[in-house]
Amino acid sequence: MKISDLSRLTGTPIGTIKYYLREGLLPPGRSLGATLTLYGDEHVRRLRLIRALTARGGLSIAATREVLAAMDQPLDPLSTLGVVHYALPVPVDAAETDAVDEQTPQVDELLRAMGWEISETSPHRRALAAGLMDLSRLGMAFGTEDLLPYAELAAAAARLDLDLLDGVDDLDDRLRLAEHAAMVVLLLEPVLAVLRRLAQEDETRHRKPWARPEVRPEARPEARG
Amino acid sequence: MKISDLSRLTGTPIGTIKYYLREGLLPPGRSLGATLTLYGDEHVRRLRLIRALTARGGLSIAATREVLAAMDQPLDPLSTLGVVHYALPVPVDAAETDAVDEQTPQVDELLRAMGWEISETSPHRRALAAGLMDLSRLGMAFGTEDLLPYAELAAAAARLDLDLLDGVDDLDDRLRLAEHAAMVVLLLEPVLAVLRRLAQEDETRHRKPWARPEVRPEARPEARG
Repeated sequence: MKISDLSRLTGTPIGTIKYYLREGLLPPGRSLGATLTLYGDEHVRRLRLIRALTARGGLSIAATREVLAAMDQPLDPLSTLGVVHYALPVPVDAAETDAVDEQTPQVDELLRAMGWEISETSPHRRALAAGLMDLSRLGMAFGTEDLLPYAELAAAAARLDLDLLDGVDDLDDRLRLAEHAAMVVLLLEPVLAVLRRLAQEDETRHRKPWARPEVRPEARPEARG
Repeated sequence: MKISDLSRLTGTPIGTIKYYLREGLLPPGRSLGATLTLYGDEHVRRLRLIRALTARGGLSIAATREVLAAMDQPLDPLSTLGVVHYALPVPVDAAETDAVDEQTPQVDELLRAMGWEISETSPHRRALAAGLMDLSRLGMAFGTEDLLPYAELAAAAARLDLDLLDGVDDLDDRLRLAEHAAMVVLLLEPVLAVLRRLAQEDETRHRKPWARPEVRPEARPEARG
């Protein structure tokens, strides 16, 4: 297909496609003379992944290049997840060094309590510390006992995530496996955040009387629990 | 305290504080003549919340103003959560109308299967549809049966979230309750994302032999299950 078809199929402006080609995110097409270059289905798939990583996942062009490079190597899922974990933007800003450092013992305690084996260089140790610092400064200090039930849910989610990767454990298609690893980390994350917000709305409706001050509990025959 | 102390205590540049004052995000201080205005502890707390909502939560100034306005009213937690839910940026972009609409039946099916009562106007219906569209386009279509276990985990997380709000159910301090509602939605979200990434790293280490090609299972006396 021509670049115009590639643009139409993926909803990506031609200028943007040319930019990705120049930046090496997208492999070059097959050149048929000076004015015609043809692209294939693999370009469609790759372009959709780039759009998903940048527009939805919030990755920079440099980080996207790093993730895509990892996908082009025959890596095992752990290494691929590792590359994705390190390339992606950490969900919380870990810049304020001293204040963040104060939370490190609590992060260590949680990891010990969960029995989690985490690389010393993982960016998520500091990211967790920074997130806890934010909450603590605003008067919502989380102790290990508050975090443990959330960590248990995270462990259950991670088991589901890895089950999804097992489902594509096709050694002939490591690119596909790597793509799935990136998707599971990056694109499932916002979906899970949305699910939690939906669940919050439902849960609030079914809580205490104050949750619906305009309706008395005895006037709600449909009420649960 | 003077504006310079407020700046130092919160790590916020004076120019930024003045901007928040002009935009009405921060209530004015107590003026003692033309050149001296004094600020109190409530300014420190409010300023930290503004920084957390904008820098960590990714809220725009307009959205932050909306959330703060909701906090200044004696709202119940459901209404406050509602305001926060509507003001905050939806985690996935729901712009591509037609393609997103195709996922609507699946969202409805999931909500029915979970028995979730969700407002027809909730922005998260479309956000979920958009997230599912992204994944589906990249060859990772999620059926209701795939989503259900994640939705169950989200429901469990929402119960923990609401328990946290119950913990501050102090009717004398509705501002505090509202602050907590915003924190539970906005600031706990990235922390939970980090917990899931940490759990993914741990879970991958303990999975199949391919998860650690350099170490054979029999050579790992410390290995779990």
